[in-house]
This record gives sequence, C-alpha cells and structure tokens, in this order.
Amino acid sequence: MTPSEHAQMIVDRLKPDVLAAECPSRLVLQHLTSRWGTLVMLVLMLGTHRFSELKRRIGGVSERMLAQTLQQLEADGFVRRRSYDVVPPHVDYSLTPLGQEAAERLAALTGWIEQSLPRIIGQSAA
Amino acid sequence: MTPSEHAQMIVDRLKPDVLAAECPSRLVLQHLTSRWGTLVMLVLMLGTHRFSELKRRIGGVSERMLAQTLQQLEADGFVRRRSYDVVPPHVDYSLTPLGQEAAERLAALTGWIEQSLPRIIGQSAA
Repeated sequence: MTPSEHAQMIVDRLKPDVLAAECPSRLVLQHLTSRWGTLVMLVLMLGTHRFSELKRRIGGVSERMLAQTLQQLEADGFVRRRSYDVVPPHVDYSLTPLGQEAAERLAALTGWIEQSLPRIIGQSAA
Repeated sequence: MTPSEHAQMIVDRLKPDVLAAECPSRLVLQHLTSRWGTLVMLVLMLGTHRFSELKRRIGGVSERMLAQTLQQLEADGFVRRRSYDVVPPHVDYSLTPLGQEAAERLAALTGWIEQSLPRIIGQSAA
C-alpha cells in the first residue's frame, strides 16, 4: 500500500480530526501554516507570481525555503507550477481552486491578526 | 526602549503587515500556527482544561512542548493560566476573549481542512 493509499484508507474509515496524531489532516495543516506556507498562499491569492516576485514580496524568505515551501504546497494540490518553453525559461506559480479556498481561510486569520495587533500588543505580557 | 515599546512604535507608525519581516504580526502568526499552538487553541475553545487533559486530547504532544506552547500563548494574551491554592495544587487553562476570537479563525481553517481532506488527498501528488 502506498502512503497515498494508506491516507485514503484512513479518510474513508475515520472522520478526519487534526487532534489525532496520525490523521493526514494534521500534515496539511502543518504545510499551510508552516513558517512560509501561509505567506506564500497569501501572496498567490493576489494572483500568479514568478519565483523572484514571491521572494521579493515575502520579507525575509530565503530561496531555499521558498522553493521547499512551493514544492510542498504543489504536492498537496494547493499551488500550480507552470513552466513555459521559452528562452530564457519562464516559470510561474498560482493557486489551484482548492488552494484558493484554503487561502481564504488563512487570509481571514492573518487579517484578524493584523487588525487586532494593537489589542494583542496592549494585552501581551512581553 | 523595551521590545514591547519598540513593537508599539511600529504598530503606531505602520500598518501591520505579515509580509513584512519585522512586523510583530508575524510573530503572533507563528505562535498561533506553531506545530502545537493551533491544536491547543482548538481544544481550549471547547472550554477550560487542565494540563493533563490538554496533553490527553492533543495526540502526540510532549509535556515539554505543551508547556512551552502554553507559555507562549499566555505571553501573547491568548491563554489565561489559573492556579488554585489547594492541596494538591490545581492549575487550569482557558482562552481570553482575544484568544477566543483567534481560535474562531483557526477553527475555520482546521474545519475546512478536515472537511476538504478527501478532495485534498484526491488531488495531491503524493
């Protein structure tokens, strides 16, 4: 049984539950909320971007971490990578319809954080 | 200037933006979406819990990581720790009103992931 078939079996038998250590939903959560995952999804929500554009918009990300994050989100089916057969080579990234749905939930969270930041800082113990 | 005053200065002058490397909103995002942070917030959304109850409900978390996560969320003002002066000592954790608001956004994300898992697994490349 491949890992994918194993995951499918769990989904078919059990109700997905991020609180369960072995539930595949937890991996998806980790990818979408990884250090750079959320930020990549937010930028791609604004439209298709090239790698260099993503790097420029996401303050502090390294090429290596951005490449790894994009690969993970592509493997999960949230990001579509398109490569154009031109000289010089042209590659760009966009959200799939599923990625768009996920990005909306992430944007609701980050929007709330940005909007609530004065209250959060006012209340925090730091 | 303390770190907190520095953060306040940034918030006062600039519009919070998680895409900016130095924006304090990004730290808040990291705490709320840390490996265990999201799951702690989800469980506390259901009500007040003791440490041992949290550990039992969150599959796979270690005592050390749970304690560290709770401290971080408490410092941000999302979690309230209450210690009762009884024998044996009794400590419990609950969400602050601000934490409740954050938890609702996190629950919208994890709810979507759980509900969409069959589609995600069907579409993923893994």
